[in-house]
Amino acid sequence: MPQVVPPRAVLLLIDLQQAIDHPSWGKRNNPQAENNIARLLALWRTNNWPVWHVRHDSTDPNSHYRPGQPGNAFKPETAPAPGETVIAKRTNSAFIGTDLESKLRSAGHKALVIAGVITNNSVEATARMAGNLGFGTYLVSDGCFTFGRADLKGHFHSAEEIHDMSLANLSGEYCTIVDTLTVLGAV
Amino acid sequence: MPQVVPPRAVLLLIDLQQAIDHPSWGKRNNPQAENNIARLLALWRTNNWPVWHVRHDSTDPNSHYRPGQPGNAFKPETAPAPGETVIAKRTNSAFIGTDLESKLRSAGHKALVIAGVITNNSVEATARMAGNLGFGTYLVSDGCFTFGRADLKGHFHSAEEIHDMSLANLSGEYCTIVDTLTVLGAV
Repeated sequence: MPQVVPPRAVLLLIDLQQAIDHPSWGKRNNPQAENNIARLLALWRTNNWPVWHVRHDSTDPNSHYRPGQPGNAFKPETAPAPGETVIAKRTNSAFIGTDLESKLRSAGHKALVIAGVITNNSVEATARMAGNLGFGTYLVSDGCFTFGRADLKGHFHSAEEIHDMSLANLSGEYCTIVDTLTVLGAV
Repeated sequence: MPQVVPPRAVLLLIDLQQAIDHPSWGKRNNPQAENNIARLLALWRTNNWPVWHVRHDSTDPNSHYRPGQPGNAFKPETAPAPGETVIAKRTNSAFIGTDLESKLRSAGHKALVIAGVITNNSVEATARMAGNLGFGTYLVSDGCFTFGRADLKGHFHSAEEIHDMSLANLSGEYCTIVDTLTVLGAV
């Protein structure tokens, strides 16, 4: 692993479930994100580095992420392999209402490489807390994506614009922004 | 208090210290934010509702928020009155590395009305955690402000645009967005 990311960092994948492919989300950015994550997964698995998956078990009756819905299942291209840790959460941040922090600390993990969905919601909430809790936190810019939406004044913002603003909020304050090629490095 | 905000909610003011007036921040939005907060403070104090102040004690040697710097002092127009709770924090979220959550829970407080600075950093980090921790969370849109900045691609975004995007991230997912007049209501 290149020196930009500490050796044996946990690859933490957020909410990569089939619900995120539902057309109701609208237009996304980073169409190559799943391919990028699959390349990171291959590197981590080859080296036997820790891969942890966060699964969103929504309590919202209208959410495709709700347990029992097809959307709750992991996306096949980035699904957990046998033996990989799965953390179930019910809210946005993977650190709230879960044993993620205690599991990381008891295993001695000090660094996280985060990817998943959506950039400005569960990914950003989790990355903000990871950094504030003192973990060395790296966010893979092209291993995340989001969707366009209007703000409260009715102004529409594209997925790319929302994604870029989220990275700007996080960069330096909560985590280091990296891209897939940088992490893959010389491998 | 109007029904939009539960009775006796804690007014939680974030990082309203003199450091935020330093010209190095650039151009801000919501120039009336301190006046709005002062009006909320007057209402809370008249009714003897709880007012809690979060003070950022930066550990960054270059920060004007560092203890011992003049910027660490509270802004006079919104400073704590005798007997009001002050929570000191060293990171962005007021819930991390502090006893904010335990103090709220042991006092039986279930709802927070949040204002302060800066919208997309400590305010957003604190509001995200407040909502995810299960507190009824209300953010005063015109009682917060931020500053313009460039994203990682070098595109400049105005303070207003960044503020609006932050409110859009928070609204519905983590908290309810309100404005000062709505909270002041019929008073």
